[in-house]
Amino acid sequence: MNVKRWLPCLDWAASYNRVTAGKDGLAAVIVTLMLIPQSLAYAMLAGLPPITGLYASIAPLLLYAIFGSSRTLAVGPVAVISLMTAAALAPMFPPGSAAYIGAAMLLAALSGLILLLMALLRLGFLANFLSHPVISGFISASGLLIALSQLKHILGVKADGQTVLQLVPSLAEQIPYINVPTLVIGGLSLLFLQLARTRLKSSLLAVGCTPVWADSLTKTGPVLTIIASVLVVTFGHLESSGVQVVGSIPKGLPILRLPTMDWQLTMQLLPAAVLISLVGFVESVSVAQTLAAKRRERIDPDQELVGLGAANIAAAVSGGFPVTGGFARSIVNFDAGAKTPMAGVLTAIGIAITALFFTPLFHNLPHAVLAATIIVAVLSLVDLGSLKRTWRFSKQDFIAQAATILGVLLMGVEIGIVMGVSLSLLLFLWRTSRPHSAVVGQLPGSEHFRNIERFSVIQSEFVVSLRVDESLYFPNARYLEEGITELMVEYPHCQYLVLMCSGVNLIDASALDSLEAIAERLTAAGVQLHLSEVKGPVMDQLHRSEFLRHFGGQVFVSQYAAMQTLDPASVARSAELST
Amino acid sequence: MNVKRWLPCLDWAASYNRVTAGKDGLAAVIVTLMLIPQSLAYAMLAGLPPITGLYASIAPLLLYAIFGSSRTLAVGPVAVISLMTAAALAPMFPPGSAAYIGAAMLLAALSGLILLLMALLRLGFLANFLSHPVISGFISASGLLIALSQLKHILGVKADGQTVLQLVPSLAEQIPYINVPTLVIGGLSLLFLQLARTRLKSSLLAVGCTPVWADSLTKTGPVLTIIASVLVVTFGHLESSGVQVVGSIPKGLPILRLPTMDWQLTMQLLPAAVLISLVGFVESVSVAQTLAAKRRERIDPDQELVGLGAANIAAAVSGGFPVTGGFARSIVNFDAGAKTPMAGVLTAIGIAITALFFTPLFHNLPHAVLAATIIVAVLSLVDLGSLKRTWRFSKQDFIAQAATILGVLLMGVEIGIVMGVSLSLLLFLWRTSRPHSAVVGQLPGSEHFRNIERFSVIQSEFVVSLRVDESLYFPNARYLEEGITELMVEYPHCQYLVLMCSGVNLIDASALDSLEAIAERLTAAGVQLHLSEVKGPVMDQLHRSEFLRHFGGQVFVSQYAAMQTLDPASVARSAELST
Repeated sequence: MNVKRWLPCLDWAASYNRVTAGKDGLAAVIVTLMLIPQSLAYAMLAGLPPITGLYASIAPLLLYAIFGSSRTLAVGPVAVISLMTAAALAPMFPPGSAAYIGAAMLLAALSGLILLLMALLRLGFLANFLSHPVISGFISASGLLIALSQLKHILGVKADGQTVLQLVPSLAEQIPYINVPTLVIGGLSLLFLQLARTRLKSSLLAVGCTPVWADSLTKTGPVLTIIASVLVVTFGHLESSGVQVVGSIPKGLPILRLPTMDWQLTMQLLPAAVLISLVGFVESVSVAQTLAAKRRERIDPDQELVGLGAANIAAAVSGGFPVTGGFARSIVNFDAGAKTPMAGVLTAIGIAITALFFTPLFHNLPHAVLAATIIVAVLSLVDLGSLKRTWRFSKQDFIAQAATILGVLLMGVEIGIVMGVSLSLLLFLWRTSRPHSAVVGQLPGSEHFRNIERFSVIQSEFVVSLRVDESLYFPNARYLEEGITELMVEYPHCQYLVLMCSGVNLIDASALDSLEAIAERLTAAGVQLHLSEVKGPVMDQLHRSEFLRHFGGQVFVSQYAAMQTLDPASVARSAELST
Repeated sequence: MNVKRWLPCLDWAASYNRVTAGKDGLAAVIVTLMLIPQSLAYAMLAGLPPITGLYASIAPLLLYAIFGSSRTLAVGPVAVISLMTAAALAPMFPPGSAAYIGAAMLLAALSGLILLLMALLRLGFLANFLSHPVISGFISASGLLIALSQLKHILGVKADGQTVLQLVPSLAEQIPYINVPTLVIGGLSLLFLQLARTRLKSSLLAVGCTPVWADSLTKTGPVLTIIASVLVVTFGHLESSGVQVVGSIPKGLPILRLPTMDWQLTMQLLPAAVLISLVGFVESVSVAQTLAAKRRERIDPDQELVGLGAANIAAAVSGGFPVTGGFARSIVNFDAGAKTPMAGVLTAIGIAITALFFTPLFHNLPHAVLAATIIVAVLSLVDLGSLKRTWRFSKQDFIAQAATILGVLLMGVEIGIVMGVSLSLLLFLWRTSRPHSAVVGQLPGSEHFRNIERFSVIQSEFVVSLRVDESLYFPNARYLEEGITELMVEYPHCQYLVLMCSGVNLIDASALDSLEAIAERLTAAGVQLHLSEVKGPVMDQLHRSEFLRHFGGQVFVSQYAAMQTLDPASVARSAELST
């Protein structure tokens, strides 16, 4: 049982059969064709040689198939994580250098170790603290930033920068040096890929193509673009006209070797590795959960940490860079009928065969085409309409989302995500530091007590009842103290204060100290504190402290019972009013 | 009105009269006598020349009197903040050097700016996130660490270290080199000061002393110790026997000058400055609030940030180091009858007179006596019994407290407090990521719905009602999704799921996304989602989104109304059962 928990593959491997294998095989072929251009492109985005993209799409897929809990997640290099890799490494080493490659492997290793550590400490819940508006803002802004950063390849110029503020002037300066053949190839690729994504399927169906063929042709769009562009460059001898191409890629499988081991570099990369791990985990778990829910399967977030951790360690020792579950790729895998992680294993075999035999075919592949692949993929993730929906629904969420977007665009991915998460966490902490509470009175003719601001209720003249609607713990303990002080100023004739604890699920040590301070101050001011409707577990807790012995009041089963004891006249008045 | 809010001194200055002045004056004399040895001692603890302690007790007090909101808080150097100053600076510069002094001033400036920035952004609530068990553990452990670090002065040896692990072996090595005259002076001082604190007053009363005299004599204990030790050293020529003394202290008031301005150093000191600001603020606000409550006065935490910020800026430009409101000192001030911050102004004048005229008197003051002053003061703050009380009340709080204590003792003050705060925050986030919820059923013969695990209630066969007891926001949104998935597995015959939202005060954008996902998945599984008892503000919020139009169910005013519509037979059964 325990082994199965840690090795989800035992679950599906036992009942694996030929029908499933056929479905997995078909999905693997489609995903492989999609993954080849993507892995080359994302390696370029990460500032790494193209071959590392293929390497990052072999061993990590195998490891995820063994340890991952999602049946259809397709792991490998993804846009945002590649951008974050470049953002972390570009300021340290020249892109593509041996030191850069070693550091990218180290980054994958760190990211893998962090994910495994989170699994061990069961810290998967931390991913919840990346709120949806922050993630959505981060993905949109990163998409825009990535598209902008790839524009130089479409224009055939050199430009650098980690932010919009650096990229735009750098590109503007280069306008006089645009390489026309590159621009033509890049522009046509962009156009074709975008049309393939949005229109091709319906057009093919319209001209009488069968749905299966229409679908397959659409998905091979990027591969067709690549083939066409390689042919054009080769036979047009465009390399001599200044069209930048991928160049020679070594043939063969990755050699297993350890990443750069350097304590100082490790410390420098650690913050980036933490961010990459968290973002990668959140992106991956969101996709995995969406897909699992569609087929009533379950994924286990803590096991996903193990799966992704193992995948990244595999990337680190096989010449790759940080990987995670890709959004578009997983959906394609799911739609193509993948049933088990065996589809991932078969995809890895497909990529391995490519690395072994077909890399020379990519020599004349233009950078512009890879850039077009990236741009079309990332722009489909940009959803600025979300900003408007968030604004309407919650101003606080909007602030966090807007800060994330501006942060990413103007200050870079790392600062952007840190700003967004910090701000949403800060706003969350601010909210939780103010417990919701209401002064309540009796609804005439009932035993119910409701907020005096929303209902016309009977209030006692010398008993004030305060309903606390949240658990009491250190973030809001002091606020309660202050609130009650204010309340006593508002009700100078108060003799009894009843804290109605129906919404309190927990009291921690700080809140207990505050309750003691409140009781003491109230006593000094001639007011007696009572409690009502204290839940069972909270009562057990209070019994383990001195509070109940010293606070001087009573604990009433219900607010009604409290009022019957403390101010029977008011209860009687309420009964009268209803008749 | 607004000016008064920012300048609380206008409040009390208007009605200031001779009676109040007399009371403030008396308190000032007593606090000055207490502050002189303390400020010299805490300067030594901070690794600074003694005179800086006096400097830190002049200008900061004046500024706090103008901007602070507490009437009786006594500001100046305190033990924990001095220890944190030493912990931040000792690894960078030789203690007592000009660079060290400049950096200490910079640290005060940074701390002041951080406090003012927190005031501007109204971030005073952040102090709530230092939970009581963490603060109490921090103060106890720091007390032990400080006492241990001062032991070298009592023994007359040299020893170094920031943690118990460094200090204990370092002291053990030095045992053969103990300076006996120093040990005698230090030991006797310790003994006398401890007895003065615990026994002197009752003994004096027993021998017929009047209470006023007994009290005053007790409070002058440290001053008497100082005078006696100076006389002994001077007339016994003990300096030549190896008794370390304070030495010559320059006479005069501090010259206003800017601290070291260095961008790199600023960045290095920033983390320490943040910790010093937060710890200082929490310590100060706790004391101020306790004292204010005793006299039914109010303090305003955001205004306290301004007061303490101004005090630290004052310390920074007048040759001082980080300051805050002291615990023991403020209580003495309060007990001595101080009525307004004018007592602080008069204390500052007392210290200024000391700096102008009396510093030569301290030439022969032994370090051992200052160390004894510190040790007695800090050991009185150690409260290890708190650990036991916390253990009984809450295991989570205990973990955070124990981690703080061990962290401070074994890894130093900065790491210790960061560990404690991070751990308590992490545990808090973990708790808030699991919203409290319960499946409910109808109490026979009533319209109430209660937890099926605690009450014998009637449950419908095909309606499941889930009461959510907390607001829904990003930390717990995913948990709700998972919880409902589990629930549907548990209740395979469920046709309607009613979310009873009586405990939900807020839904944020992430939770809205989760609710949409939940509704969609339930629909796919043939279950219809309904809501009941949604509060007014939450309903307003939902109306600003598309959710209500698309989720496919109804919003019922009460859970009872929901059951009447969805399963009248079950409601009828409940009514039957009660008769």
